[in-house]
Amino acid sequence: MALEIERKFLVKNDDWRGPWAAHRIRQGYLTAGDATTVRVRIDNARAFLTVKGECGGPTRSEYEYEIPSADADEMLRLCQSPLIEKTRHDVLVDGQLWQVDEFAGANAGLVLAEAELTHPQQWLVPPSWIGLEVTQDVRYRNSYLARHPFAAWRTAAA
Amino acid sequence: MALEIERKFLVKNDDWRGPWAAHRIRQGYLTAGDATTVRVRIDNARAFLTVKGECGGPTRSEYEYEIPSADADEMLRLCQSPLIEKTRHDVLVDGQLWQVDEFAGANAGLVLAEAELTHPQQWLVPPSWIGLEVTQDVRYRNSYLARHPFAAWRTAAA
Repeated sequence: MALEIERKFLVKNDDWRGPWAAHRIRQGYLTAGDATTVRVRIDNARAFLTVKGECGGPTRSEYEYEIPSADADEMLRLCQSPLIEKTRHDVLVDGQLWQVDEFAGANAGLVLAEAELTHPQQWLVPPSWIGLEVTQDVRYRNSYLARHPFAAWRTAAA
Repeated sequence: MALEIERKFLVKNDDWRGPWAAHRIRQGYLTAGDATTVRVRIDNARAFLTVKGECGGPTRSEYEYEIPSADADEMLRLCQSPLIEKTRHDVLVDGQLWQVDEFAGANAGLVLAEAELTHPQQWLVPPSWIGLEVTQDVRYRNSYLARHPFAAWRTAAA
């Protein structure tokens, strides 16, 4: 098992843009709204099956296995809600990796930045383009966004 | 992907017993009652993560990956319903493998036999100890038994 410790933020502007590596991600969920999620992800040419459990706070238990892309492609059709489509940019600022996700499809307009930490109390210096922290806001979880796309609630959130 | 074509039967008596290979199986489900199931199984010393989709009839799509036993052991704790515990006996009759599952715990008393087929119309000669076919009876699915143990409904079924 890995413990995933992640903090998530809204992104205020485009100042993060640069010649960063970008991946095209398509993912879906085989579980519907449970505390445990089972995710199928195709990230560029690689594919993964990932189980995440609830631990509270920014920490979740995570079990990730690389699987054949052809399997993932078929399994994505078993997902009950629409897929999440996004482009992930690996933005490196002062040695900290920020994964900036630009969502597409029904979640277009949403941009989130995630920082993975090595322990829950790790000091994090947010760059100027980082906005409100949403780590504890379940609406910004990808598993929630798959069932309740941003387009349906963004006005209320603005 | 593999297509799993399986027929399932009740077992009438003990005539199947013999010096067959036996595995101790513990398994649980990360999904609760969806058409798609995600199963964690420990089968003797090996462990698997398995996604099964609904195809209708005796056929299901199945994606199975071997995973570290330690991961499986932890993931079984994420399962929301009690685990299925059973001993599986590999009974070979005239070249056809019958997997006879003797359930334990809350499903004790239930014995099921499964035959895996290579195509849906394959001819199958049931041995004398094979009883009623229950392929289409969802109550005998392991994912159902995890949430509704045999002990709770066996009297009604008898």
